[in-house]
This record gives sequence, structure tokens and C-alpha cells, in this order.
Amino acid sequence: MTRGKFISLEGGEGAGKSTQIAPLVAWLAERGITTKVTREPGGSPGAEEIRNLLVTGDPSRWSPVTEALLLYAARRDHVDRTIEPALAAGNWVLCDRFADSSVAYQGFGYGLGEAWVHTLHESVLGNFWPDATLILDVPVEIGLARAKTRHGDEDRYERMGYAFHEKLRQGYLTIAARSPQRCTMIDAARDAASVQADMRAALILQFPELGR
Amino acid sequence: MTRGKFISLEGGEGAGKSTQIAPLVAWLAERGITTKVTREPGGSPGAEEIRNLLVTGDPSRWSPVTEALLLYAARRDHVDRTIEPALAAGNWVLCDRFADSSVAYQGFGYGLGEAWVHTLHESVLGNFWPDATLILDVPVEIGLARAKTRHGDEDRYERMGYAFHEKLRQGYLTIAARSPQRCTMIDAARDAASVQADMRAALILQFPELGR
Repeated sequence: MTRGKFISLEGGEGAGKSTQIAPLVAWLAERGITTKVTREPGGSPGAEEIRNLLVTGDPSRWSPVTEALLLYAARRDHVDRTIEPALAAGNWVLCDRFADSSVAYQGFGYGLGEAWVHTLHESVLGNFWPDATLILDVPVEIGLARAKTRHGDEDRYERMGYAFHEKLRQGYLTIAARSPQRCTMIDAARDAASVQADMRAALILQFPELGR
Repeated sequence: MTRGKFISLEGGEGAGKSTQIAPLVAWLAERGITTKVTREPGGSPGAEEIRNLLVTGDPSRWSPVTEALLLYAARRDHVDRTIEPALAAGNWVLCDRFADSSVAYQGFGYGLGEAWVHTLHESVLGNFWPDATLILDVPVEIGLARAKTRHGDEDRYERMGYAFHEKLRQGYLTIAARSPQRCTMIDAARDAASVQADMRAALILQFPELGR
């Protein structure tokens, strides 16, 4: 059994990640690929319980360090119990957010720094990173306006304020610049079909077998 | 305002820590010391929520790394929101379990190693450690027999098996040998009054003002 590929989708609030998942899965299926779709925080029973502590409540509920530790506790559970078994079984894994979200949100947004998050990552997951990461980029005002139209009480991150989201966006740009082999920035301010087309093109560049 | 002292009580299941707290608080009060009693995992509203994920459920519910991260998430919250404010206000803090429990349980008991836990500790809390630690030591069979007689569903650690608890006990002996300035081993297999007398004597050695 050939091991599957691990693809993460990243971006700020309202970048449109969720909308893009179903058409991407369908496109991969046409190429004979079985995809396991998952998300963070969460994605395994234990990690979903930790998620409940993270996405609800007051923005100042957790300090940045505490939050990063909760996220990595959930991430390790998710990797052990969902992602690794799926990859080992030959599935491709499509994950809505992964470690780059911690670098962007806790490292850049809250100012813990990239280095601190990378040290924690290495302690917890060694050099386990996605094979490809698509970062959906939209201007902060567009993203927050989109995000406002959805889900109920899971709005803790959206309520962080404009300056936070601007730092987040700059963080993602830095991440993409640091890891150009793995990460592709996608202009997600356009219509959904154009964004999807760019995402597919990026994946073909990363995994040439998809273009055959 | 003189900053208070931070004392932690450590030991395996059924070592008798809880029994010893009230008489110790009374003895400190006679010396004009106001004590804040707290415990881990927990000790602050956020940390108590994380505690619920840790002390109930199946022994294999969390992998050792995930568990260590949850414990340090709770610990950072506890330090930020309970321990540090209490010390700054001049109280002494008496804490039922602290970081040595992670070294003993996750480092020695589960085999993550001392070094791994110490690296995590430094990332999360720098060089913040108790001013004094009293380790209550009992043979495993006595401790587990005592532990069986108490609390209801918070028994996840007790159900880990004899070999685990033996590694735990050896871990505490190693911790005490590594930090002889901070840690005192107390023979807790004896009657409660003798144990209390030894705890007081150890604290007088550590904080001579208590003996005046």
C-alpha cells in the first residue's frame, strides 16, 4: 500500500477553506484517490473535546502559551489517531488547518514568535509536516465580513479584532516565503471557481501524478 | 509586601497528601502565614476544565505526549491565574502536585524521559519551580490500598497497574536525588502525626523563619 499524501488548507477567518473542500475531494476521486477530510482543532474524539475548550468563550479565556499547548495536545491526538492511520492505509488526508495555524495565530498573531512554536512542534511531532499546504489569502476586511455570515457560538477567533487578523495575514505570507517548496499562496478574494482552479494547479505542481 | 513561598506536595496515589494539608495550614497560620491551598491538575477555572479531560475515562484515553501537553496547558493557566497572584500578594502557596508529577508520571512512568519533560517545562514556565517540595513516599501496595478507599470516578491514574506505580515511585526517588536543595523525601508509610512532624521539620530546614 502506497502511503497517502497529507495536504493542509490554511488561511484566516472567512478565507473560504470549507467551501473549497468538497470540489477538491471530487477532483481527487476522479484521479482514483480516496481522501480523508478532517479539520483542526479537532479531528479525533479527544481532539474534538479539546476543541470545545478553544473555540468558545471569551477571547481572553486562555493565555497564548496555554492555548498553544492545548492546540498541540489536540494535534498530537489527531495525528496519532486519525491522520497517521489514514495515510498509512493509503488515503490522502485533506486537513482544514494544521500546524501553520499555530505558527500564524499563536506565533505571529499573539506574538509568541515562530521559533517558540517551532520548538514546541519539534518536541511534539518531530519533523512531521504536511506534504503540501495551500494558503487561502484574502484581505482582512473581506474575510471578516464573510466569516460573520456563518456558524453560531464558534466565533472566539473572529472576535479578536482587526489588528490581530492583519498580523495573522502577514504571518501566513511569512510562512509561505519560508517554506516555498511546501506552501502555495492562493488569491482567495476571487470567485470560488477561480480559487478552486488555482488550488488544483498548485497540487498538480506538487504531485505531478495528478496532472496525468 | 514580601513575596510568599511556593511549596508543593508530591507522591504517588494514596501517599496521604490531602490528609496532611489542613494541619500544615494550621501550623503555618500560627506563624502568621496566610496560605493559599491549591492542587493540580486544576487550581484555576480553566485548568479545572482541562482536569476533567485528564482524571476520568479509560487509562489509554490520551497518549503520554498529549497528556503531558494537557497537563502543562493546565499548569500554565494555574500559575498565571492562581499561583503567581497569590505569591505576589504575600500568601504562601501549598500545592497538591506540581511539575514534579509530570516528571514522575509522564517522564518516568510513561517513559517520555526526564529531559523531554524538562524541555517542555522550560518552554512553558522558564525556571519557575517550587521553593520547596515535600515528596511523600509509600510502598506501592500500601498507596494503592489506601487510594482504593476514596473518591468515585477520578480513578484513571490508580487503574494504571502495579508496574506503572513502581516506576513512578523510583521516578520520585530520582527527582529527590537530583534536586536535594528543593526536595525532601518523607517516609509516609507511618501514622499521620509522624508524617506531619517530618514535613514541618523539613520546612523549618528550608525556611528557618518558621522555627523561630
